[in-house]
Amino acid sequence: MIEIITIGDEILIGQIVDTNSAWMAVELNNAGFQLSQITSVHDDAELIKSALDLALEKNDIVLLTGGLGPTKDDLTKLTLADYFDTELVYDESVYQNIESLYRTRPSVLNELTKAQALVPKACTVIQNRVGTAPIMWFERDEKVVVSMPGVPFEMKKAMTDEVIPRLMKKFNRNAVINQTVQVFGYGESSLALKIEEWENALPDYLHLAYLPSFGLVKLRLSGALTNGNELQAEIDRQFGLLDEILGDAIIARNDFPLEKNLGEMLRAKKLTIAVAESCTGGNIAHKITSLAGSSEYFIGSVTAYQNEVKENFLGVSSEDLKSYGAVSQQVVEQMAEGVRKKMNTDISIATSGIAGPNGGTEEKPVGTVWIAVSMKDKTISQKYYFGNHSRENIIERSTVSAMILAMELIKGI
Amino acid sequence: MIEIITIGDEILIGQIVDTNSAWMAVELNNAGFQLSQITSVHDDAELIKSALDLALEKNDIVLLTGGLGPTKDDLTKLTLADYFDTELVYDESVYQNIESLYRTRPSVLNELTKAQALVPKACTVIQNRVGTAPIMWFERDEKVVVSMPGVPFEMKKAMTDEVIPRLMKKFNRNAVINQTVQVFGYGESSLALKIEEWENALPDYLHLAYLPSFGLVKLRLSGALTNGNELQAEIDRQFGLLDEILGDAIIARNDFPLEKNLGEMLRAKKLTIAVAESCTGGNIAHKITSLAGSSEYFIGSVTAYQNEVKENFLGVSSEDLKSYGAVSQQVVEQMAEGVRKKMNTDISIATSGIAGPNGGTEEKPVGTVWIAVSMKDKTISQKYYFGNHSRENIIERSTVSAMILAMELIKGI
Repeated sequence: MIEIITIGDEILIGQIVDTNSAWMAVELNNAGFQLSQITSVHDDAELIKSALDLALEKNDIVLLTGGLGPTKDDLTKLTLADYFDTELVYDESVYQNIESLYRTRPSVLNELTKAQALVPKACTVIQNRVGTAPIMWFERDEKVVVSMPGVPFEMKKAMTDEVIPRLMKKFNRNAVINQTVQVFGYGESSLALKIEEWENALPDYLHLAYLPSFGLVKLRLSGALTNGNELQAEIDRQFGLLDEILGDAIIARNDFPLEKNLGEMLRAKKLTIAVAESCTGGNIAHKITSLAGSSEYFIGSVTAYQNEVKENFLGVSSEDLKSYGAVSQQVVEQMAEGVRKKMNTDISIATSGIAGPNGGTEEKPVGTVWIAVSMKDKTISQKYYFGNHSRENIIERSTVSAMILAMELIKGI
Repeated sequence: MIEIITIGDEILIGQIVDTNSAWMAVELNNAGFQLSQITSVHDDAELIKSALDLALEKNDIVLLTGGLGPTKDDLTKLTLADYFDTELVYDESVYQNIESLYRTRPSVLNELTKAQALVPKACTVIQNRVGTAPIMWFERDEKVVVSMPGVPFEMKKAMTDEVIPRLMKKFNRNAVINQTVQVFGYGESSLALKIEEWENALPDYLHLAYLPSFGLVKLRLSGALTNGNELQAEIDRQFGLLDEILGDAIIARNDFPLEKNLGEMLRAKKLTIAVAESCTGGNIAHKITSLAGSSEYFIGSVTAYQNEVKENFLGVSSEDLKSYGAVSQQVVEQMAEGVRKKMNTDISIATSGIAGPNGGTEEKPVGTVWIAVSMKDKTISQKYYFGNHSRENIIERSTVSAMILAMELIKGI
């Protein structure tokens, strides 16, 4: 088992969100390792040492992130030298690596950065190819402690290129599989009742989890067996049974973000898409374009926050805007049709709603959202109500619902 | 001191990122409490109990999130009943709360949800006004353990309305202040050298941290003193000294996201803004509109992923697109001017670059980004190079740089 210890005051005062651990968990799982615990501690030598003590009692591997910067608040390296009862020594290979990084940088190599070449004598150094803080690999009593930078892209490169391959070599692994289906149209508990019989009949080595997420529920089956093929076959069989129970409510048999499933449908059917956003404010375009290769199917979008933009850029009727208001079936359908025609795409998505916290009325309270999807011969629209949620949450739910509505339309093509 | 224990397999297999803890840390800090540690454990009774044991050794308060769903994988309530040596009893007030929630829901109250009204006899129940899982407050030997749902908006409402006010009442607090300035144009170590003398002269009770973030470095001063006014005055004085050293490089004396600082500048100067995005794909519009009240200054945006959209929606010259390419000074300036004129705003932002991982050339490698900002009498543009970063990272750095360039332009107005 592995424990991750993240080091840094910034996590414990909430200045940053720890996204590293989730990424590491996924990569470690894929390599057959399981996490027992994630622990976040301050930049404090005593706290780091006591967390290490506890982690090494229960685990074979402890991965540390953070606290390796060149400045005084970073204590991890000194603490580890102390913990492993060793001294700091100058490492020429680290210095060479730092120097080569600075060759492509505009700034000058200063003494603080040069000091990054001092490393604990007892560790094996792994070069950090994209940053100045070296990765340090310690071993004691067949257990491994690895210290990596907290900067996400430095940590990710070190994990992928060096740390995980070395861990796989050193430790024997059990086959671990986590697989997910995404279900739309059920609440968590109504879904649980619908699949109760199936759930109760699962073999002991499979574990089911329910993960509600902005109008979707993800169902995850996890298991560990010596025989990975057997495990995979059983998970496939169980998801097959689930298909029979839930049918179309299963919108994907994976844990991909929706924009990826939408993108793959568009690519497979060679369709292009455009987006007209009001309440989602650019979030749908942002989600779609966050994926490499999205330029194959994504043509463009208009964020039409003000009514003039809806009229001038999307051709929405100014009379309808007056009669029905911006948050209406008439307007959202015209937005979808307008952007599709003007950007000359196969399909389009449009949103118009009240994300709040202000701007609601009795007739159209905060959380009221109209969504339309349009193709050449067909435009469909639907009204949603996400009342009582935060602005961020309403934007996110609208984005999810819009992508699902688009996927439903595309399925029929 | 407080420890947060987050409970849920989904965190340890990396299916979700723990955003709750950072939010809780900020709110607790503001109320004068400090976090000692964050621990994430599996949905497993023994692991939960041993984490509780360790946390109660070192802390007066332990806050648990997660594991309170109605389904079988959620074990927190049963585990707590066992840990506090008590039994589950039916609580009529919880049942009434659940029933009232269901009155506004389309779904039917089923037996799994009804079972949420069973609570450990030894706890004080706090009603969850936005979800079915009650909040449970336990006391033992003057220490407090509170269990809350992991669903972020349910946890946030419980913390704000009930848990923090009750903790403030029960525990005496020291004044704790964390304040941040945002510095642009320095790397972490070059900044450290620039302010070395100032840093060395800080009083003992102030702690400085460096937090690099997509081209910015945030400097955070933290301190704890019995006299909060004295602490605040000293932090103000220190930041005043820092102003003299760093001047314009300090772009904000707060920890707000850039879009908030940009938005407040626009609001203060009564300016409107429009955005034309290529490589940022809607992210700038999304960031700006994520804030309540942004419709006061944000008019709209065009995501012009394909060249036709740059021509038809923004009036970019098709000849220039051919001669210079989409990622060029000529095109990005025309994008900025085009969207400003067509949306009739005071200022505008445009981006055009190669976010990768594909699409780079020798002349314009992945990470090359042109950014322009435009107002009536002036358009400025700048070339950036974010090579060697991920797509996500390049999009984020471009977004940050574009907002900073806009803030520089607005300062001069």
